[in-house]
Amino acid sequence: MEHIATPKVENVHLLNPVNLRDSRVGTLYITTTHLIFASPEEKEELWILHMHMSSVEKLPLTTAGSPVRIQCHNFRVVTFRVGRDREAQDIYSSLSRLSRPQSVEELYCFQYRASSSNKSPELPQPTGWNFFEISAEFSRQGADSQHWTLTTLNNDYSLCPTYPKQLMVPSSAQPSLVQGCAKFRSKGRLPVLTYYHTSNGAALVRCAQPLSGLKGRSPEDEAYINCILKSNPKSDYLYIVDTRPKMNAMYNRAAGKGYEAEAFYPNTKFVFKGIENIHVMRDSLAKLVDACETKSETMETFLQGLDASGYLKHVKAVMEASIFIAEAIQCGTSVIVHCSDGWDRTSQTCALAQLLIDPFYRTIQGFQALIEKEWLSFGHKFTDRCGFLDGDPREVSPIMSQFLDATWQVLTQFPEAFQFNADYLLAIHDHVYSCQFGTFVGNCQRERLEYKLAEKTYSLWGHLTNTADQYINRLYEPNGAGVLSPSVMPQDILFWTGLYCRYDLGKSVANGGSGPKKDAPVISLLNLAQVTSTSTQSLEDTAKHLSKQVNGLKSLISNSKATGAVKKFLPSVVTNMTGGGGGS
Amino acid sequence: MEHIATPKVENVHLLNPVNLRDSRVGTLYITTTHLIFASPEEKEELWILHMHMSSVEKLPLTTAGSPVRIQCHNFRVVTFRVGRDREAQDIYSSLSRLSRPQSVEELYCFQYRASSSNKSPELPQPTGWNFFEISAEFSRQGADSQHWTLTTLNNDYSLCPTYPKQLMVPSSAQPSLVQGCAKFRSKGRLPVLTYYHTSNGAALVRCAQPLSGLKGRSPEDEAYINCILKSNPKSDYLYIVDTRPKMNAMYNRAAGKGYEAEAFYPNTKFVFKGIENIHVMRDSLAKLVDACETKSETMETFLQGLDASGYLKHVKAVMEASIFIAEAIQCGTSVIVHCSDGWDRTSQTCALAQLLIDPFYRTIQGFQALIEKEWLSFGHKFTDRCGFLDGDPREVSPIMSQFLDATWQVLTQFPEAFQFNADYLLAIHDHVYSCQFGTFVGNCQRERLEYKLAEKTYSLWGHLTNTADQYINRLYEPNGAGVLSPSVMPQDILFWTGLYCRYDLGKSVANGGSGPKKDAPVISLLNLAQVTSTSTQSLEDTAKHLSKQVNGLKSLISNSKATGAVKKFLPSVVTNMTGGGGGS
Repeated sequence: MEHIATPKVENVHLLNPVNLRDSRVGTLYITTTHLIFASPEEKEELWILHMHMSSVEKLPLTTAGSPVRIQCHNFRVVTFRVGRDREAQDIYSSLSRLSRPQSVEELYCFQYRASSSNKSPELPQPTGWNFFEISAEFSRQGADSQHWTLTTLNNDYSLCPTYPKQLMVPSSAQPSLVQGCAKFRSKGRLPVLTYYHTSNGAALVRCAQPLSGLKGRSPEDEAYINCILKSNPKSDYLYIVDTRPKMNAMYNRAAGKGYEAEAFYPNTKFVFKGIENIHVMRDSLAKLVDACETKSETMETFLQGLDASGYLKHVKAVMEASIFIAEAIQCGTSVIVHCSDGWDRTSQTCALAQLLIDPFYRTIQGFQALIEKEWLSFGHKFTDRCGFLDGDPREVSPIMSQFLDATWQVLTQFPEAFQFNADYLLAIHDHVYSCQFGTFVGNCQRERLEYKLAEKTYSLWGHLTNTADQYINRLYEPNGAGVLSPSVMPQDILFWTGLYCRYDLGKSVANGGSGPKKDAPVISLLNLAQVTSTSTQSLEDTAKHLSKQVNGLKSLISNSKATGAVKKFLPSVVTNMTGGGGGS
Repeated sequence: MEHIATPKVENVHLLNPVNLRDSRVGTLYITTTHLIFASPEEKEELWILHMHMSSVEKLPLTTAGSPVRIQCHNFRVVTFRVGRDREAQDIYSSLSRLSRPQSVEELYCFQYRASSSNKSPELPQPTGWNFFEISAEFSRQGADSQHWTLTTLNNDYSLCPTYPKQLMVPSSAQPSLVQGCAKFRSKGRLPVLTYYHTSNGAALVRCAQPLSGLKGRSPEDEAYINCILKSNPKSDYLYIVDTRPKMNAMYNRAAGKGYEAEAFYPNTKFVFKGIENIHVMRDSLAKLVDACETKSETMETFLQGLDASGYLKHVKAVMEASIFIAEAIQCGTSVIVHCSDGWDRTSQTCALAQLLIDPFYRTIQGFQALIEKEWLSFGHKFTDRCGFLDGDPREVSPIMSQFLDATWQVLTQFPEAFQFNADYLLAIHDHVYSCQFGTFVGNCQRERLEYKLAEKTYSLWGHLTNTADQYINRLYEPNGAGVLSPSVMPQDILFWTGLYCRYDLGKSVANGGSGPKKDAPVISLLNLAQVTSTSTQSLEDTAKHLSKQVNGLKSLISNSKATGAVKKFLPSVVTNMTGGGGGS
């Protein structure tokens, strides 16, 4: 509780941005993990995980009070107005600190403990951590052992610290060649196999940019690329796809990096794909969020804001590059993909290309394997990109969100080709940022092992498997679709309102109808003790488990003797909170 | 065949707008009902119904030949290039004439005859014509006989020629009052019941604008409106919703029409809803089609074109007015809805409001009843609005398409609330324009009886029931949703690419995957004789029936002896066509 200046503030207004007069009055609680707002006017409390907060702002004082505005990674935006400025300052400083931990050990996953619900049985902590095994995945792909082999050179992460231990390289490449090639690639991220096309022998290979500068060459790199070419004897050339805009790649040459000159790499075809960098993507998302938030509510302002954000254009670019890769592989041509460091655009396009080619990756289990391989094993920097810790804000970028968006675009165009539904993508998106599970913590495999996440935290994959019922796509036809070729015509790239506007007001349904979109996970105050203690429980499970008890609680609260009764239910936490200090 | 100048033109190029070098060469046939393009490079012929053509243009001559461009009501756009200008002129003049019949008797429904397919049994001609009975629908609604009664005053269409014979009016309104009221309403379209809310007694009443001019009054109209108010004893006021923008309604006053002054209609609340008129809607759709056709293919040009068309803004306006009406009815307040003549905006909003309130209208059968009642019985001018005949182009407007679009928006927001899927809406849309069925021919009930459509033509409802399998929404939960309250936030109003861009190129799928969208109905040349004779068959049924035979046909054609063999299959038509003249 050390960072909680004021654990409970009464008479707080939750403002309705569309209609200020429609604000709700209630009590705001700050626990070690969540902000909770309970209003007697509402059946359900509002719970916001600190880890989900992407920004906390104290807005200018008004005559009515001090507003504090919270933006979340799941695109929820709420503004609370507090009567006393000192309390607003306390809330602001507590949330700012709690939403931006200083060290990995402070992350939610190290506190979270699963328990059973009436919906799903208790999840043993190790469940899910062993679902994925990279060598098993290469066996599943049918990677040809004559041409491809697992090297042990990275067993101690000395070849490439941000790569996994197990790397598939051409069988014909001697260790010295592998090591020489790694030296000529940014951060040692040499070209390694990520997908093998069983029926035609084409390979999808990923890496970082070469350290070529303006005129530099590496005989080892060139020989190694030739080994990759030879590992697919049916094709006499291969593609090198630089997913960056040409200008960016050229700019990198001045810093001793750059791209492959076709002249030095015989029988290769080199192409740029024009996907913008993390800074452009971050700014684009910020503009998109602004466009969604505009209060004017006209079709024009929204469409103009959507256009100005460029967000769909970027999603389209990721899809276009992925389709190019998928089509080449499908035609039997091997493809080497890189960007700068090979952990953002490369992860996006390699993963999406495989999703298009291989129906396995469109199953619940297969999509997990795809994320494990392309994102976790190959070192997408989740800690930096998602801003889990108090760090450099210029490292934050919605690269994974864009991939999930592109996946949603494909799912929307081919609704029968996926075993999972859009809720599955939303659940993954939310838990990438929640840090409730250790799965996405860290920037690479090596870091995750150091943090002992598999021993100390729960796996998202275990949780999702435990709750898989809600993610089954009822339109799925397992044997229906083979290779997918989505349209990237501008008319077919859609705005994913289900992700970016999930929590917008005006979406509730009058007269008991079912809502158009799933609401936020809710939870009863009754469970406060559980959630804030070390014996916590998944938010969603709890919500379902307790839905019946909410009404009972409400009458309890509205009863004048409620304080005493609630205290009886929540002996430790409420006492701690109202008394201040102490803590779990 | 009298309007067919050249029934067969060889060496015609079907141009690919994205890549001109990717055009297909083939033979173009013009039959009495369809244009057919057969290319040896393609498995399937392209069939376009003349009735589906919304515009035929002869583009400027190029060195490569004369292009003829065809735009269709189902948003297909094709351009053929013909070597000889005289042939292009023949094609242009034939199609211009065939796509714009001069008289009702020329419409496709009077030639079309159903036959059985392996998918669906033969449809007897009368099937579907008796599915809907307005008095049965009022019984289903539970219309309260104490307060509402069927009047016989319009049995001979003398009260209102564009209304149905059977009209529900307040029981307390004497015939003289009913007649007096009709005299004070545009085209005699007096306020009559269209939906009765069984559980709260609120009534949805529709009409045309009053002939009030600047200061005119009608004691009968005022008394009649009061009867409507009294027919819902639980409420002490009612709404009059003028769906037009206030400016338009005021402008109408100068022409002796206008809107109700609250002062003269005690206990009414009057509101404008700001839906634009048919001319604005027609222009908006034209701009939308342009935006979809832009070849530049960038996200920016499309979003800017979509914004500039204003199309989604108009769909949003229709939804907003409908939600207002639905909420009022749901709260127990009766609502009188009108626009100018009460057959465009009034049909849209009354129908959509009922779709939101009553789950019955979200079933396959219920949606048919809703269209029968709100659109056909109450006289939406399908012949004029859809431009079936060669008439005033300023009467054409996509009012029905907008309603189907708004329905699709609701279906997309509440995927489990509908028994039918989006393909059902597409099928209805296509057949509104195809005139294959007599269902939508004519401007009102009286005209349809005069044309003897129920005796001479097939009903779309029979056909859709016969092929209902493909329209079942697999996500439907019959008891799940009650009243729907869709979001009209700009972020939630989507562009319906499945309708407006169904035939875009770049949507086919490589390597045998299943396509993202259903392709155009296709049909084999083998069936040409059947389709162009009077014993024709539904396009889609035929397509399925013949899919297996297509490959056989292709090898036949590629064979050097094909001409003779094909002629053997198609004795009458091909001979007629190659010989010119004659005809069915």
